[in-house]
Amino acid sequence: MTTKIAILGYGNLGRGVEMAVTQNDDIELVGIYTRRDPATVKVASATPVLPAAQLDAGTEDIDVLIICGGSATDLPKLTPAYAGKYNVIDSFDTHANIPAHFAAVDAAAREGGKVALISAGWDPGLFSLARLYANSILPQGNDYTFWGKGISQGHSDAIRRIPGVRDAKQYTIPVPEALEAVRRGENPQLTTREKHTRECFVVLEEGADAAAVAEAIINMPNYFDEYDVTVNFISQEELNEQHSAMPHGGFVLRSGATASGNQHLIEYSLKLDSNPEFTSSVLVAYARAIARLAAAGKSGACTVFDVPPALLSPYQPDYLRAHFL
Amino acid sequence: MTTKIAILGYGNLGRGVEMAVTQNDDIELVGIYTRRDPATVKVASATPVLPAAQLDAGTEDIDVLIICGGSATDLPKLTPAYAGKYNVIDSFDTHANIPAHFAAVDAAAREGGKVALISAGWDPGLFSLARLYANSILPQGNDYTFWGKGISQGHSDAIRRIPGVRDAKQYTIPVPEALEAVRRGENPQLTTREKHTRECFVVLEEGADAAAVAEAIINMPNYFDEYDVTVNFISQEELNEQHSAMPHGGFVLRSGATASGNQHLIEYSLKLDSNPEFTSSVLVAYARAIARLAAAGKSGACTVFDVPPALLSPYQPDYLRAHFL
Repeated sequence: MTTKIAILGYGNLGRGVEMAVTQNDDIELVGIYTRRDPATVKVASATPVLPAAQLDAGTEDIDVLIICGGSATDLPKLTPAYAGKYNVIDSFDTHANIPAHFAAVDAAAREGGKVALISAGWDPGLFSLARLYANSILPQGNDYTFWGKGISQGHSDAIRRIPGVRDAKQYTIPVPEALEAVRRGENPQLTTREKHTRECFVVLEEGADAAAVAEAIINMPNYFDEYDVTVNFISQEELNEQHSAMPHGGFVLRSGATASGNQHLIEYSLKLDSNPEFTSSVLVAYARAIARLAAAGKSGACTVFDVPPALLSPYQPDYLRAHFL
Repeated sequence: MTTKIAILGYGNLGRGVEMAVTQNDDIELVGIYTRRDPATVKVASATPVLPAAQLDAGTEDIDVLIICGGSATDLPKLTPAYAGKYNVIDSFDTHANIPAHFAAVDAAAREGGKVALISAGWDPGLFSLARLYANSILPQGNDYTFWGKGISQGHSDAIRRIPGVRDAKQYTIPVPEALEAVRRGENPQLTTREKHTRECFVVLEEGADAAAVAEAIINMPNYFDEYDVTVNFISQEELNEQHSAMPHGGFVLRSGATASGNQHLIEYSLKLDSNPEFTSSVLVAYARAIARLAAAGKSGACTVFDVPPALLSPYQPDYLRAHFL
């Protein structure tokens, strides 16, 4: 069975989905929908670029619509709007707003008899699965999540809003000593400062006051003031050459004990050269699963917690049992 | 809802299940069934010890029967025998025979309208899940599994069968350089010898020829001849004091690339003080899931690949979305 998917929104994530489809023979990309003028959107493949409005009637021939947008303003509107018309998936990642987003998407999907999966990706997504499996198996223990080394878009944006800053990139870096203490089973109580450091690469506007900018970064509430921060001033050329990739990753650990007192450590980690390309690869695997759930007559919203792992794979159950179990 | 479980077979695994139940408030251990004389079986809890024959009529009040036995001879008989009478779970771990075992258990479970989950544990089990998720997300890449540091029961038994050996324990140890090469994304082609070393602690019978025993170990086909092996001769007291724990663990890695060529590494690892206690904890979490699948009207055999992760947790879906996603 071929799954026909379409993309709504052609940014880094949409481009990643377009790329991931080429690695999955059973998935066909049938359209890239955009809210911009389609004539202005150059895509990497021969996929037709179509106006988003064409989705409105709910009559496009699509098994799963992958909604690629930001969690702040795009997805809270787009996913509920389309969940009644198509099977959809998004990567909504504002953890605190997941319950509200789920409720809105679930109502629309049930009404339309469609399947919607929210918050797919790696965190939320694969990291959430690591937390759930580990907590279910070791009910008594401590959870630790470390992010990085990787670019934090939110922190980079925050630096760019400081007067005198022309451009900036911020890396979140786990503190190796903290990670090692967790791995040794010491179950440390870690403060924010003890878990991560933040490294900033900043390009100044001409004539800007470097010391003032550094102060503004280091003391920025919530974003930086609780961390040890390094600020490096570099040229735009160096930023473009050395810091234009989008690596990320991290570590999810659960350190627990069975009732005898014996210690156990479960660790899941990702090291990603491209955060959006990897997230897109997760979306495509879950799109396959959604098509199967829809074909089985399911409807409503779900998350990675609700999807049997076998549905992610192009292989049949007997092959999976023989080769992956 | 309380899930009533019972244990069939009271060895290391059965004892681990008995222990794991104490960490799960929604699970009640209602019986320990044994093929030995129940009067001779001392258990750690106040659970009634009952003759296995009492299970035969299929009338015991049990939601899930956890079958704790060896994969060589016990489980191929026991799991199909009880799968038609009770919802069951086992930790069958002879990878090559999984398809045949699945077929036998599936036929019995379908006939009886029961749910049966085979091959739960960590390998097969959690490691299988790590392989499946990682392969589904990164279809182009290489898989690596390293085991240890841990006691291999099979290799310890093989040493004990050598004339002149009184007792022995064998540790399987991943080669750090190989693991690091994989983590660096080098996608190495690794021989058996390059992946693991084997360390043996051997107690000789009085008057036995140490050199001959060492030769016999090192040259043993399949078990040792393809590995770098260290043999240490120690006293029974030292073996008992230093090597009676049952630690194990390992690493599952997938190193892959998205279509752009960007590299990604997914790693899952376990470090376990007690192999049987951890395996038992996995069995108990999946017993909860089986009870839920049975309550939802499912029947037939399944594996960890078929179980939605949320079913493993005592928490409700809305709580999981709010706190684990």
